[in-house]
Order: sequence, then C-alpha cells, then structure tokens
Amino acid sequence: MNIVTTPSSIPEQVVAAIRTVVGAGPAPLHEPSFTGNEWLYLKECLDSTFVSSVGKFVDRFEAELAAFTGATHVVAVVNGTAALHIALKLAGVKAGDEVLVPALTFVATANAVTYCGATPHFVDSEARTLGVDAAKLREYLASHTEQRAGHCVNRATGRVIRALVPMHTFGHPADLDGLLAVARDFNLSLVEDAAESLGSFYHGQHTGTFGLMGTLSFNGNKTITTGGGGAMLTNNSELARHAKHLTTTAKAPHAWDYRHDEVGYNYRLPNLNAALGCAQLEQLPVMLARKRELFQHYQAEFLQVTNIKLMAEPDQCRSNYWLQTLLLDDEHANLRDSVLKATNEAGLMTRPAWILMHELTPFEACPRMDLTVARSLSRRIVNMPSSSNLVT
Amino acid sequence: MNIVTTPSSIPEQVVAAIRTVVGAGPAPLHEPSFTGNEWLYLKECLDSTFVSSVGKFVDRFEAELAAFTGATHVVAVVNGTAALHIALKLAGVKAGDEVLVPALTFVATANAVTYCGATPHFVDSEARTLGVDAAKLREYLASHTEQRAGHCVNRATGRVIRALVPMHTFGHPADLDGLLAVARDFNLSLVEDAAESLGSFYHGQHTGTFGLMGTLSFNGNKTITTGGGGAMLTNNSELARHAKHLTTTAKAPHAWDYRHDEVGYNYRLPNLNAALGCAQLEQLPVMLARKRELFQHYQAEFLQVTNIKLMAEPDQCRSNYWLQTLLLDDEHANLRDSVLKATNEAGLMTRPAWILMHELTPFEACPRMDLTVARSLSRRIVNMPSSSNLVT
Repeated sequence: MNIVTTPSSIPEQVVAAIRTVVGAGPAPLHEPSFTGNEWLYLKECLDSTFVSSVGKFVDRFEAELAAFTGATHVVAVVNGTAALHIALKLAGVKAGDEVLVPALTFVATANAVTYCGATPHFVDSEARTLGVDAAKLREYLASHTEQRAGHCVNRATGRVIRALVPMHTFGHPADLDGLLAVARDFNLSLVEDAAESLGSFYHGQHTGTFGLMGTLSFNGNKTITTGGGGAMLTNNSELARHAKHLTTTAKAPHAWDYRHDEVGYNYRLPNLNAALGCAQLEQLPVMLARKRELFQHYQAEFLQVTNIKLMAEPDQCRSNYWLQTLLLDDEHANLRDSVLKATNEAGLMTRPAWILMHELTPFEACPRMDLTVARSLSRRIVNMPSSSNLVT
Repeated sequence: MNIVTTPSSIPEQVVAAIRTVVGAGPAPLHEPSFTGNEWLYLKECLDSTFVSSVGKFVDRFEAELAAFTGATHVVAVVNGTAALHIALKLAGVKAGDEVLVPALTFVATANAVTYCGATPHFVDSEARTLGVDAAKLREYLASHTEQRAGHCVNRATGRVIRALVPMHTFGHPADLDGLLAVARDFNLSLVEDAAESLGSFYHGQHTGTFGLMGTLSFNGNKTITTGGGGAMLTNNSELARHAKHLTTTAKAPHAWDYRHDEVGYNYRLPNLNAALGCAQLEQLPVMLARKRELFQHYQAEFLQVTNIKLMAEPDQCRSNYWLQTLLLDDEHANLRDSVLKATNEAGLMTRPAWILMHELTPFEACPRMDLTVARSLSRRIVNMPSSSNLVT
C-alpha cells in the first residue's frame, strides 16, 4: 500500500522552515538582547545622578559610535525621526521645497520632510537592494526637472527639489555610488536614512557616512537599542556643531545667561538612555555575527522552498541583516497574506513591508514618479523573526 | 577700644544666608534625588526587555500621574517641549496664527508655537505670581483685537490669536481664574505650560488641569525626573486619544499593517524612562515636603536681609517651590550680577531669570504688548539652590 504525501502549501512550507531555524515556541519579529554591561552602566548612571541631558555616557556613546562607523562626528538625539528632522534642516530644506524619498520606507522618512514645511516626492526602488533605483531616478529627473540658478526645480510644481533621502531598507545598503552621482549631477543634498543599517557597510564604508549627513535609530526594535534614541553622523565639523546646537535648544554657552540665538529643539539623548547604548554597542559585533548566522540558517532552509526567495546582501556590501526578508515570486504575491496569517497564527511573528507612502492619506497628494517596482516589492515582502538571540 | 564692624554688602549677606541654609560645600541649583525604587524599577524594566515605546511602566506612570494631578487622562511623551507642541496642535494652532505667551518664560514655550508654524505674541507678567497678568492682558486684548466669526483677531497683523499659554513660573501658579475668564471672553484656547509646577495647586486643584490641556516636564532639573520626559494632561477623552495617536506616529491599530492616517510624531516616552518616573513619583510627596521646608529655612534667613525678598506662594495656592526665588528691590536691581557672581564664586549655584523672549534674536520681530513688569522682574530675579536633598 502506497502512502501518498500531499506536497504542503507555500504558507505551510514557510512555517516549517522558520520553525526549523527558530525552534519551538513563539518568536517575535525582533527583540532586544541585554547580555552585557547594561545593568552596570544604568546603575552607574543613576548613582552619578546625571540621568538627563548632560553626562559622560552621552559623550562616550557619541565617541564610540564615531569609532564604529568611521564618521568624524556623531550627535546623539532622542530618536531617529528627530535626527532626520535636523539633518534635513541642516541640508537646507525649507518650507515650500520638495525632498526625494522612497515610497517604500517607514513613515518617519516622509514625516521628517513635512516637519520642515517641505513636501515628500516619492521615488521608486530596485529589487536588488530594496533601496532607491539610481538609474531610474536619473532618467526621471532628467525629463521632469530643470536647473535654475543652481537648483533642481520640479517642472510640474515649480518647487525646488532640495535633497534626496535614500533609506537602507531592512539593513541592506542602497546603491550609494549611483545615488551620490545623481545627487551631484542634479544639485541635491544627500541625507542617508540609516535608521535600519547600523553595522551595514557599502564597499567597506559604513552606511550613513556617504552623504552630507546620515541618521541612525536605536528604537527598541533595532539591532541595538537605547529605549528610544537616534544619532546624526557627519564628517563636516561645522554641521556637527550646528546639529548639536539645534538639538540642545540653541543656547549660546554662558555661565548663567539663557541666550538662544535661533529656534532650537529639545532633542538631546538623555544620559540614562546613552548608558544603555554604551553597553549595547559593546555587544554589537556579537549581535551582528549572530544575525549573519541566522541568515545562513534561514538560507539553508529556504533553499528548499520554491517560489520564495530569501533576501541576501547586495554585491560588495555587508548587511547587518536587521530584518530577515522573504520575497515571494511575482506569480505568488497573492499568497502574502496567507503566509502572514499562517506564520503569525503559529506564533512566528512576521509582517509585510510598510504600506507605500503615497497610499497613506497624509501623502496621497504628494508628487511621485512611476512606482512599479516599489508596488511589486511591497506586495511580495515578508519579514521574519530576526532577533540576534535566535542564534546561540 | 571699639571694634568697628562694617555692615556687609547685599551680595555678602546673600552668600551668608544661603550658606547657613545649605551648609558647607558647593550646592547646585537643582539636582535629582534617587532614594526610592529607582534602581529596582530600572532593573525590572531591563529584565522584561520592554525598554522602548511599549511597556507596563508607561501605562503605570500615566495612571499614577492621573491619580496625583486629578487629570482624567495623561499621555506621556519624550519631553515637555513635545508635550506643548502636540497640545498646541490639538488646541487648533495652525500656520499663520498667533499664540499669547509670557515674555518671561523658558524658550520652549515660544519654540513650541513656532513648531506649529505660528507666531508667539508676548504678554506681560505680574509680580504677585510671576505669571501672566490677566487684568493687563484683558485690557490689551480689548483695545488691540476684535472678534471676527468667533475668532480673536489681532488688528495690527490681521492674524487669528488662537490660544493663550500661561506658564507657572518656578512652580508658582499663575492667576488661573483671571486667565480662564480672559480666554473665555476672547475665544482663546487655554493651554497651561505646567512644566515647572508638578505638585503645585491653585485653589486646591492641580495646575495643568484647568485649560483644554496642560503639559508637564520631567527633565533632569525638575522636581522629579525621567532623564528626559514630559506629559500632556486633559479631561477630554477625545483629545487624549488624539494626543496618544499623534505621539505614536498616528498608526491605526492593526496586527501587521502600517497604516498612518495623519502626519504623526515619534514622541512616546520610552518605557525605560517611565520606569524611573514611577519610582520618582513615589518619592514626590516627600520631595515636596522637603522643598517646602527648604523654603521655610530660607525664609528665616532672608527675613534679616534687607532690599531683597524671598518669593512665597500666591494666596490660595500651594506651590511646589521648584526653584527658590529671590527678588531684589527695584532700587537694587543693579546688584543682581554682583549677587550672581558672589554666590557662584562661593560654589552656591544661582542664576537669573531667562532673557525675555522678545530679546532673543529668533523672536525679536514678534508682536508684543507693554512688558514693563516682565522687564523689571527679569532684572531682579535670582534663583537659588533648590534641591530637595538640601533638607534631610
């Protein structure tokens, strides 16, 4: 008598593959891991009574981030959104401007543009990096903009396009060489949204250090966390000085006078959060190694699953593998919600890509180019459990 | 032979009086005190791994703040400036509006107005409370504004004056009855900047709970601290819901979809900081008692110093005595800098009031009423060492 085995469905295969990698029990999408000096530094911070906007952990966190990323200057702030807001201001983004932003990104990228009174202008992504498609953007700008007095002007709106903000999606570096060339040729400032890519390198150089400024996030779901936190990276000392000034209420130094010489922000990272960050940074190399190993485990399992691909780091790049990413084939995009449902019901937390920015009510009237690839990617992406502690 | 004693100068008398109260050694202006469950809760938070935007300490901190202040709803945020920004947005402040703000305040009050694209309009203070002078404001509005379609319009600029933001200076409640009547009669929303007045009551009711919304700060220099932190208070459940929505990136609830239905902010207080806040709140009654006792010690000493007055809580108010405040007589205002110099050189940290808002470069072109009293106060105020741990 023959035993007939029904080939299991794609959602069932995905559940089985993830289960093999992460073991029994539930697995969150990404949880932090505190296995180093986190307690020690928090206690030390508390005992010093310097828990707020001044303290040695903030200075140390900035110095150690500079050493790790190779950026000359680092300014720590309350979160990645605040970092982007100030980086855009320092890039000269003003009310009435437009800023090029991927449609496939977290909402903070677009929100930060509006905080400057500017309008996001959405651009397409490429499947190779999940980041902005430089070649397609170049063609679009060539046919839709003109240079006026050294500024890139959108012919349709008459507004200046001031900056380009690529985002390194799920930790995979965007095509920086291509994007830097576009920025140069069209007179745009390049600000990197590296919120997801601490520990990701493009051609051997850390993401966030290529443009005028780059920004990091240390939210609870990121590779390392400060509770809430972010940072600006730059190699320009005047921009760094101004960034610190603007994020500390723009107060001129004085023993007792409260003289603020421009409209500033209360964006400084508290010393308490920086203390956690210092301990987390010490663990970063181990976490990155574990996240890479997790990718390899997934890779072995997903080789055997048809019609779905595991996202690997782009050529000549080293990704931090912040979020492990599956990409359904075009013909199986319609299975995405079944995969999400099956995995989440099995206690294996997955999620789709963000809804594209131009599909959100607050941004539906914003200018945009053809977004065919971003649309396709957003229908096919599934992020899987990615915590570094899934590998021991 | 007679021994001739030279009567000592006012600065010398001030140094001697402070020294008698605070004892030998240096005394900062205000330092936090961690004598309760601070370490326990921080450790518990770390062990839970919920250090970021979700966690039980944020909910608990909000509930306990509601219980203490009597506000129906509390929304915790990253700092007092963020709280003011969102409170003003929810009060309907829009680009092109004006907002009445005391000239005598910390810069955050005016900055938050500009974040909404609006213009601060500076108003005078009264010596009795150090807060906005309701009677003088009423007279000014009566002669300088007119009602158009239910809005208060500045005749000189043609702009709508949307809101009034009194600030409870150094913890002393402003004249809320007078200011609420002005707000009602001139169709202004009243938002209380209660950053300095946690634990201060006006006619038995906690400051920050009188207007449409009130805002608190838990910066490191405040009565209790979360490292960095703030909160919005309101008795309106729809405003509270909207405040929480706006401060958590305006994401609609869904298992996995990232649908943001308006431009939101990343302003949520991290759970780590809320853990510190929960422990600090438990200590608040003791701290308030000590700060009151410190006031009494200063009172005994400064009775004997001529030409200078110690600020006491206004009638029918209970102040938190956040910062102890000296006020030089008009005729001795010129001694302020000598007092600041002598005390700081003696290791007794003092500071003057903030530079008035209209004297700061970013606000010098803003509309303002006659500011005679604010000018006089700002020339005469000296804040003294005020930490609760100066009393044991």
